[in-house]
Amino acid sequence: MDFERIFPFWGDLKQEEQKLVEGSVVSQKMGKGDILHRGCGECSGIVHVAKGQLRVYIVSEEGREVTLYRLHQGDLCVLSASCLMDAIVFDVLIEAVRETELVVLPSPALSVVMQKNPMVELALYKTVVENFSEVMWTMQQILFMGADKRVAHFLWDEMAKTGEMTIRLTHEEVARFIGSAREVVTKVLKYFVEEEVVALSRGKIEIIDKAKLRGYL
Amino acid sequence: MDFERIFPFWGDLKQEEQKLVEGSVVSQKMGKGDILHRGCGECSGIVHVAKGQLRVYIVSEEGREVTLYRLHQGDLCVLSASCLMDAIVFDVLIEAVRETELVVLPSPALSVVMQKNPMVELALYKTVVENFSEVMWTMQQILFMGADKRVAHFLWDEMAKTGEMTIRLTHEEVARFIGSAREVVTKVLKYFVEEEVVALSRGKIEIIDKAKLRGYL
Repeated sequence: MDFERIFPFWGDLKQEEQKLVEGSVVSQKMGKGDILHRGCGECSGIVHVAKGQLRVYIVSEEGREVTLYRLHQGDLCVLSASCLMDAIVFDVLIEAVRETELVVLPSPALSVVMQKNPMVELALYKTVVENFSEVMWTMQQILFMGADKRVAHFLWDEMAKTGEMTIRLTHEEVARFIGSAREVVTKVLKYFVEEEVVALSRGKIEIIDKAKLRGYL
Repeated sequence: MDFERIFPFWGDLKQEEQKLVEGSVVSQKMGKGDILHRGCGECSGIVHVAKGQLRVYIVSEEGREVTLYRLHQGDLCVLSASCLMDAIVFDVLIEAVRETELVVLPSPALSVVMQKNPMVELALYKTVVENFSEVMWTMQQILFMGADKRVAHFLWDEMAKTGEMTIRLTHEEVARFIGSAREVVTKVLKYFVEEEVVALSRGKIEIIDKAKLRGYL
């Protein structure tokens, strides 16, 4: 295993700490929809995504989910070790979006190297803040700049104009039509996919729930 | 000055680093509405609130503001040093909510102790994550709660904070604090008047039934 690539703090570890990590990591396979972390109380450790994708999300009392960010191949998930990071006082859920392979450094070993070496704790907190930068961005686009409304209006109008539930446009083209950036449109459309408003395929956006789409107008 | 109370990393500093900090801090007074930090490019350093209150917020392209969190007497503001923290890639604004007195450790000196001592960087990132725990809470309110709940939460928190049943804020100001529109806040407050939860007069919201207000939390 390429530990230097997996763990950002690898180069800061002493030899005995590196040995402890090498001897502690385990591989784990998850199926689509399997839950890695269920908020409060659980503490599996830090998790490297070797293959597949994880989704970090929150759930309201009424059961509504909002995705905070996703972790792809090569990313490190640290909120699954939030029990060891006392500055984190909120709960998230983490699930495998598809078949996913993980390399896990379990909490007991992680805890030992964290106590011995402050650079490990620093690397974990830095990763949390990097992830949060993404959360802030999502939050601004979707909630405050009204991008979700603009995309919803555009899709609604296209549907009305063509009389078809399938809109044959790329994200780039939609972005150009509504005067936004492709990244913004992609984020909103991904959000709509999760909310089961649309389904996406190459060059196509299919509206699967008109009533839900209307809710965003 | 009680540096140990002001800077969470004080005990981890070497004597020469403590001397550098002692010789570098400056006091600063701000009037109500004065801007301490205006996102990208500015970097005043870390800021201890000796008196008063700071508000950390984001602004949409359309000028809509959303308060992320507030810093009260004794709190440390670190996002004003985000230029020195490369994991932060988003912008916020920071303003004084009322007359505020600050103790500032300017960026040049902060940068030196950060490079010498990883515990300083760790303390800053930890503070960011603590603040983010509060942002998550705000976000959950915005995402999941109805406007009535949000207004009720705001009034309740203000009451708890000031210990007074009368909140001296306009509907516009309440809207800005909870990330909503003035019209929405006015509607909710009128509803609360009808339900005999609050009474309204010019620039004032008086809570007349705490138990009823609690029912909306």
